Amino acid sequence: MKKIAVFGSTGSIGTQTLEIVARHPDRLTAVLLTCRKSLEKLREQIRIFHPEAVAVESAADAASLAQEFPQLKVFSGNGAQIEAAKTIEYDVMLNALVGIAGLAPTMAAIETRTKKTKGDGSSGLMIALANKETLVAGGRLVTGAARRADVSIVPVDSEHSAIFQCLAGNERNDLSKIILTASGGPFREHTEEQMEKVTVKDALAHPNWDMGAKITIDSASMINKAFEIIEAKWLFGLTAQQIDVLVHPKSIVHSMVCFRDGAMLAQLGLPSMKVPISYALFYPERPTTGVGQADLASASPLEFYEPSGFAARSLNLAYRVLRESDEKGYDSPAIVLNGADEALTALFLEEKIAFTQIVSTLEKMLDAHEPRPITTLEEIFLIDAQARAEALRIATAPIAYHRDR
Amino acid sequence: MKKIAVFGSTGSIGTQTLEIVARHPDRLTAVLLTCRKSLEKLREQIRIFHPEAVAVESAADAASLAQEFPQLKVFSGNGAQIEAAKTIEYDVMLNALVGIAGLAPTMAAIETRTKKTKGDGSSGLMIALANKETLVAGGRLVTGAARRADVSIVPVDSEHSAIFQCLAGNERNDLSKIILTASGGPFREHTEEQMEKVTVKDALAHPNWDMGAKITIDSASMINKAFEIIEAKWLFGLTAQQIDVLVHPKSIVHSMVCFRDGAMLAQLGLPSMKVPISYALFYPERPTTGVGQADLASASPLEFYEPSGFAARSLNLAYRVLRESDEKGYDSPAIVLNGADEALTALFLEEKIAFTQIVSTLEKMLDAHEPRPITTLEEIFLIDAQARAEALRIATAPIAYHRDR
Repeated sequence: MKKIAVFGSTGSIGTQTLEIVARHPDRLTAVLLTCRKSLEKLREQIRIFHPEAVAVESAADAASLAQEFPQLKVFSGNGAQIEAAKTIEYDVMLNALVGIAGLAPTMAAIETRTKKTKGDGSSGLMIALANKETLVAGGRLVTGAARRADVSIVPVDSEHSAIFQCLAGNERNDLSKIILTASGGPFREHTEEQMEKVTVKDALAHPNWDMGAKITIDSASMINKAFEIIEAKWLFGLTAQQIDVLVHPKSIVHSMVCFRDGAMLAQLGLPSMKVPISYALFYPERPTTGVGQADLASASPLEFYEPSGFAARSLNLAYRVLRESDEKGYDSPAIVLNGADEALTALFLEEKIAFTQIVSTLEKMLDAHEPRPITTLEEIFLIDAQARAEALRIATAPIAYHRDR
Repeated sequence: MKKIAVFGSTGSIGTQTLEIVARHPDRLTAVLLTCRKSLEKLREQIRIFHPEAVAVESAADAASLAQEFPQLKVFSGNGAQIEAAKTIEYDVMLNALVGIAGLAPTMAAIETRTKKTKGDGSSGLMIALANKETLVAGGRLVTGAARRADVSIVPVDSEHSAIFQCLAGNERNDLSKIILTASGGPFREHTEEQMEKVTVKDALAHPNWDMGAKITIDSASMINKAFEIIEAKWLFGLTAQQIDVLVHPKSIVHSMVCFRDGAMLAQLGLPSMKVPISYALFYPERPTTGVGQADLASASPLEFYEPSGFAARSLNLAYRVLRESDEKGYDSPAIVLNGADEALTALFLEEKIAFTQIVSTLEKMLDAHEPRPITTLEEIFLIDAQARAEALRIATAPIAYHRDR
């Protein structure tokens, strides 16, 4: 029986993870659920899954839960997720937290295992990672700590899971490069002029995937794919030259691996997160998920394009970041990119900046940033906070705004 | 150092196999080469690869080789390939023989291993199979004998190798079905009327692959894909319901596996046989082959169609054969199909019958055939010989010919 801690249990990935847990009561049990504020949904999940503990943000919510569920251990406050990550025993951390908030709990989980090891010598911990920021901002620290503690990190997103699935049964040395596919978002065929006029409503309408607001905007701006490039570096130990992106509007091919013998493997399917979640939880097994099979004859033709225009401009942010990281070991630019993007996306959602200002501001910030190496979580949080403040300042300064138009 | 016996060393697959051997002199050595009559090419191969033995058809050729290469063991005559398969020691039999002639040497190789086993308990033999007829005509016998002797059979053709590559790292139980891709051949968009007028020259012009005459005609008639359906049954232990075919004119996706979790894996690449040959020889490693990477953006769009018309009619021959095999264990129809097709293809190449008569005659023969189980190689050869004679009789009888027009 695998004990699962679901960080971010009330979001889209968390909910689907619990549906998979419900499908396999003989093999999976949810021992810890965490969320920020969706108390009603959490209550419902507690009634169904009987976790040992939960973590919520506010003390009032915690008190209310403690009263209703006397057996339940309840963590609350700013450090609740980290505290829960350190205290509760689990075999799998499913990290579906949103934003940079996902980083510290992952690190806490890994650090508890540097001391404990299971009978077979392994740490007994697998991190099923749906939180991009953990690796985008903390890639070197997190993967280094995980390696030392023998903690495995398995991707839970459609593209990196596709790569992970294609690599199974192959030797890592034989990989020559990977190709991440990108739907190209709703603005794939927009002119520069049209891009200037994109509204929040336009940007929230993703053609293939139904996701949260932040990631949907990131998909529309292609910044999401830029983050996936950085994530892929850390998950699979790649350099910038080994990571290509192809625009594939139908999102049937979820990503591909090219091997040095000339063979390519691709993972395909309907756009459902249940497949990557289930694959991470049961790897290398593939029990049924209730997800149907893609019909290639109906989906035909499948198109692939080199990224160009706006898409290429967004992806270039990632390649700039990776070059510093690959060549000099300087990881601060990724933290700037990530923190600034969170701030800029929020500003766009509040209709305070234009859509194109997200990318143009990120470019300006990378231009101005002095790359440096990162050795502690504290440095990450400091650079992150500075980047948010700086993004706000640049993007909302009247003169900068006019220059962008 | 792996000892390779190359059966059919002077053909297209044999030649490419030896190119791979030449690329890895530290890991592979060719100990046995066989061919029918291409004596000049064989001589050249002997000079380069210094095999321990060769097998040829005629006694005169054998005598000439024995004189030129005094150290060389030379087998000749009708039973030369079988004798060589039994006598020489090798780790891999690369079987690239053409037609039903490939069956008996495979069986001979397996049978020698029922007695010998290596230190680790395995038979120490792998059969890299490029000869379709071994499994089409002898599937149950060959796979049964191989299982008992712990001999592994690994496919060396583009489609089945693709399936094999997609299955690596996955559990066999999780497979739900496979999808073999088919280029659809040069007549994919022909009307019935156009099909009647197909010439030998038309049929020999395959759009994507450069292969021998028999397999090129089989590709044009889609009978090759029918055989691949039957082969897939035996290689991967599938039923007719688990084997689909999609027409994919560009032959970039070589085949696919659908798993029960909803995921699909596909293997893609340029049309080169070196990838499947190398994968079979080095599995699960993938050393460089000199084959470049497919460029999906240039190849885009990739199209997939359900087989229809003439293609569906040819494939239906395989499904008819498999139903008897799956449901009753009767394997004789596959032998009829295979033997008759060899005879009919030869007749078509001699311009004695029309192209459409290949499939129409095969249909008539399956209609008239009484399916039965097969327990010995001798039965296979008898049914094969009868099917050839019967195909000749039906196809060249004036009245049958006129009925087909």
